[in-house]
Amino acid sequence: MTKSQSPSASPKMWVKTQVLSLRLPPEGFRLVSGAALKAVDVAYEVYGNLDPDKKNAILICSPLTTDAHAAGWHSEEDKRPGWWDDLIGPDKAIDTNRYFVIASNMLGGCRGTTGPASLDPDTGKPYGSTFPKITVEDMVNVQKLLVEQLGIEVLEAVIGGSMGGMHALQWSTSYPNQVRKCICIAAAACLSAQALGFEVIGRKVIVNDPDFAGGDYYAEGKVPGHGLAYARMIGHLTYLSAISMHEKFGRSHREGFDESLFETGFEVENYLQYKGEQFVERFDANSYLHITYAMDRFDLVERYGSLQKAFAASQSEFLLVALSSDWLFFPEQTRELGKVLLELQKVVSVVELDSPYGHDAFLLEVEHLSQVINGFLEKPAFTQEKPTLLQEHLAPAKAAEPEGATLHQKCFTSKEDYRQLENLVQPGSYVLDIGCGDGSLIDHLYHTHAVTGIGIDIDLRHIVDCLRKNVPVVQSDVDEGLSLFRDKAFDYAILNRTLPVVKKPELVLGEIVRVARKAIVSFPNFACIGNRVGLAVKGVMPVTESLPHDWHDTPNIHLFSLRDFQALCERQGVVIERLITISHSWPSRLCLALGLPNLGADFVIAVLSKR
Amino acid sequence: MTKSQSPSASPKMWVKTQVLSLRLPPEGFRLVSGAALKAVDVAYEVYGNLDPDKKNAILICSPLTTDAHAAGWHSEEDKRPGWWDDLIGPDKAIDTNRYFVIASNMLGGCRGTTGPASLDPDTGKPYGSTFPKITVEDMVNVQKLLVEQLGIEVLEAVIGGSMGGMHALQWSTSYPNQVRKCICIAAAACLSAQALGFEVIGRKVIVNDPDFAGGDYYAEGKVPGHGLAYARMIGHLTYLSAISMHEKFGRSHREGFDESLFETGFEVENYLQYKGEQFVERFDANSYLHITYAMDRFDLVERYGSLQKAFAASQSEFLLVALSSDWLFFPEQTRELGKVLLELQKVVSVVELDSPYGHDAFLLEVEHLSQVINGFLEKPAFTQEKPTLLQEHLAPAKAAEPEGATLHQKCFTSKEDYRQLENLVQPGSYVLDIGCGDGSLIDHLYHTHAVTGIGIDIDLRHIVDCLRKNVPVVQSDVDEGLSLFRDKAFDYAILNRTLPVVKKPELVLGEIVRVARKAIVSFPNFACIGNRVGLAVKGVMPVTESLPHDWHDTPNIHLFSLRDFQALCERQGVVIERLITISHSWPSRLCLALGLPNLGADFVIAVLSKR
Repeated sequence: MTKSQSPSASPKMWVKTQVLSLRLPPEGFRLVSGAALKAVDVAYEVYGNLDPDKKNAILICSPLTTDAHAAGWHSEEDKRPGWWDDLIGPDKAIDTNRYFVIASNMLGGCRGTTGPASLDPDTGKPYGSTFPKITVEDMVNVQKLLVEQLGIEVLEAVIGGSMGGMHALQWSTSYPNQVRKCICIAAAACLSAQALGFEVIGRKVIVNDPDFAGGDYYAEGKVPGHGLAYARMIGHLTYLSAISMHEKFGRSHREGFDESLFETGFEVENYLQYKGEQFVERFDANSYLHITYAMDRFDLVERYGSLQKAFAASQSEFLLVALSSDWLFFPEQTRELGKVLLELQKVVSVVELDSPYGHDAFLLEVEHLSQVINGFLEKPAFTQEKPTLLQEHLAPAKAAEPEGATLHQKCFTSKEDYRQLENLVQPGSYVLDIGCGDGSLIDHLYHTHAVTGIGIDIDLRHIVDCLRKNVPVVQSDVDEGLSLFRDKAFDYAILNRTLPVVKKPELVLGEIVRVARKAIVSFPNFACIGNRVGLAVKGVMPVTESLPHDWHDTPNIHLFSLRDFQALCERQGVVIERLITISHSWPSRLCLALGLPNLGADFVIAVLSKR
Repeated sequence: MTKSQSPSASPKMWVKTQVLSLRLPPEGFRLVSGAALKAVDVAYEVYGNLDPDKKNAILICSPLTTDAHAAGWHSEEDKRPGWWDDLIGPDKAIDTNRYFVIASNMLGGCRGTTGPASLDPDTGKPYGSTFPKITVEDMVNVQKLLVEQLGIEVLEAVIGGSMGGMHALQWSTSYPNQVRKCICIAAAACLSAQALGFEVIGRKVIVNDPDFAGGDYYAEGKVPGHGLAYARMIGHLTYLSAISMHEKFGRSHREGFDESLFETGFEVENYLQYKGEQFVERFDANSYLHITYAMDRFDLVERYGSLQKAFAASQSEFLLVALSSDWLFFPEQTRELGKVLLELQKVVSVVELDSPYGHDAFLLEVEHLSQVINGFLEKPAFTQEKPTLLQEHLAPAKAAEPEGATLHQKCFTSKEDYRQLENLVQPGSYVLDIGCGDGSLIDHLYHTHAVTGIGIDIDLRHIVDCLRKNVPVVQSDVDEGLSLFRDKAFDYAILNRTLPVVKKPELVLGEIVRVARKAIVSFPNFACIGNRVGLAVKGVMPVTESLPHDWHDTPNIHLFSLRDFQALCERQGVVIERLITISHSWPSRLCLALGLPNLGADFVIAVLSKR
């Protein structure tokens, strides 16, 4: 569901923008560069109520050119509500019945917070060219003062998309103990070279506009409108995707354009022209320069030496959301960041929402984004203990009944099967569940054996289920997802019915004994007596309890027997430490009793390690 | 191999640019718009020798901003050769030992061919703002006059990349009988909305440069350098890919930049700045405006009503080459064009070269591009008869020995197997060979039974083999490739050993009886006696002549028996018209003799049709 389709039947939330003049020390607000601003005003809005213990505050960090008006309505005359109203409000993903939500205009902006167009207290004139260069860190420091001066010590969450995602990341590096949950959407630890390219051109076009006057255009009553409009047009293209542009504009065009100016009348030209002009109306060129400059130079690796160092001290839980067709911030950048946080054994979930809308999907893919954010926010607090390999602390054994388990998890959904597995996993261990489905296995092991862990799955519905269950999860193809994890990152890697599904079983087998000390693999034995007899007698591909699909639409694209599996392990240097065979029928059980596991095992669970 | 790695040990080819003043009727050169140019000069180069029968001429169409100097060297002082020297020259892909190659600067350009900077014969001053708007069709009409006035009636090939690819397409629509082969690389029948967006901004930036002076800047000795440089920078970004930019620039930066101008010192900024300045040195802003304007408005659908109408009369054979990471001209656009040409039953091959270099790969992916172009050019002329379903004309039966056949084609490589298939296919029919390997099957059937056809394969080596054998081929995944073909486009669709390999056998089965009147499917029978006994006794997945791979790295991801296949056909409404069972052992043969095909058939060939 996209923005235009979203229901907004709920009553309007009336809000207003306030301005706080920050209380500052005598030298003013010290920037990272060493320069200082004598006074800093911050425009902000709040939604919902702050709990007496002040622990329910969420900060919303805005993208490049929006303002403090993130949600609700200012007046009946408003044509539209705040820019993220689809996500923020009573009973919405960021629920103002529960949370106290703060949104602010960023430092350097032009919508109420101090920026280049503000009056310099020293001169009484707009800063213009004298406004100091600022950084994302400075912007976050201003947000921190705002939050503090609203009386809040620790934020329940910091949430931001695009440049706001950079703010969120900076928060959990700058204030590692004061952000419980960090949600970073469609952003990265730095811009890509391609994105930098577009930014750089946009700024050159502004600076070279004759009306820019070196930045001191305020007194003259002119604005570098052409330059700013063109910069905005360039930027705008990077927010859309080729597909969304094709669908929105195609090659339709209209009459009445000026051929002498080489206009085409194409809808895309009209749209860009309109977006450019509209932007000039509402935004200050100096603010655009300063803010994009800060974004371009934001680079956590450069600032801290490495991403590892940047996030080492952070106590936040992370939710990283990438957008499949985003080419301003690529999903690969999100995965890269996720990889580092996983290495650091942070509690982190990595989601890639499938969307055709490019970068702008963080404003448009409301339904999926809501589910993911809400799942992550509303979950019960995850263990505050960071996952530590095999800590010996047992939670009170409370056998939760698995609910809504998918076929994929079928083998471990009965109480008996769960017990089978519990016996293989040491209490307090840290596990990776590959093809984790709805996360019920990790959830169960957490409640019965104090096991923590992380899941991998590709299906968004499963991802949301996991988040709701408080199971960190990485949305990924199994064949690719394991590269995110370092050697021996886990005590156990569990591959439950997933080996026949993967494209490269050999690779995956090698990977699971790399990322974990032990791997637990379960699979149907294709050479069980039922299949053998079935194939020998009936001459058709078996459809059984263990292999429930027709041959032509089965996800099980690699079939193999217990003996085949043993041979592959042998060749790969993988030790089978323990083998559990499961039989569903009396002939199978008989074969097992006769010591013929490759005939008798309908289903196999193996505990593996690297030789 | 990319440009930098290409060997250039061969002796330099010395060339020079010539200028031809076109012989024109008294009213001058009439443009599509109705306006006329009194005089037109064309700068061009030629390489190689024109045969006495004048049938060996190839026209090279240049991209946006290059010139007539496509190959060779002008002098010892040259730092580099012509812009496509890697592909054009003695013993190169476009072999000047064999062909007479012509390259020219396009109409509207600024490198010797008449353009806005040329002197208007009426005024003796540069055209400037009075230069009429031109189209791609006008440019091609100028090329046609050049070619004619060089004494050439029919071109052996027209070859172009990027905007030159648009020229090539326009050639075979404007002059349907005078282009034998049309090679269109990294281009399309129109620009995408996204590409238009970048173009539009670039032109606005130029037109709004104060030094543009409405286009009449020549007299003043100024050029709209800033505008032109920024437009070029924007364009340049669209020629690269995110990956290539990441590899080339990353986030490295240097000192000595001007912070007051919001410069960053990033390598990508320095590079763009350099590219922009360099471009201003060598290119005229008015030419850039006129040429990009023509490119933006090029739209064969708008011009002719539909692509079908545009190409209906064309007698050309087509080679369409897309580049995987090109986002100025998307591979999807090439596929769409290919689909139309296939519908029109043109002889067409569609290739997608895998490259990380974005659009610029048409200048950089020299090795693969050479193989593909050379394969297409050097092949013996394909039947001049357009493929017509079941024409009754038998070629003299000449049983060509199949050579170099791949595993994939194994079942049909022995003389006996080929004969097996010949008997199933009517002479003179039109076939689709899905998973065609090196094209030897169609080649064989062409020589023995006057069968024409087209192959589908994913492997570039196979594609090149097919082109060399004169077998038109579409490079595609089987699961996706069939959507290119209309209903009943073929007499036969042949799926040789490919059904177990595809991801969606059910879908593919439905597709092959849609696109062809009959389908011929061959596959190993998983329930053959050898497999049954093997599995029942040994308990391992069979590795046999028919199924030669280990279970974990087999391409055969869907295994099935003859009976399974029959059941699926039954359910899908697919009629098995004929069934040929092949046995490799005496027990198999015995089973067959006993009337037990699902036990006796090691391998099956089935002729199918839609109910």
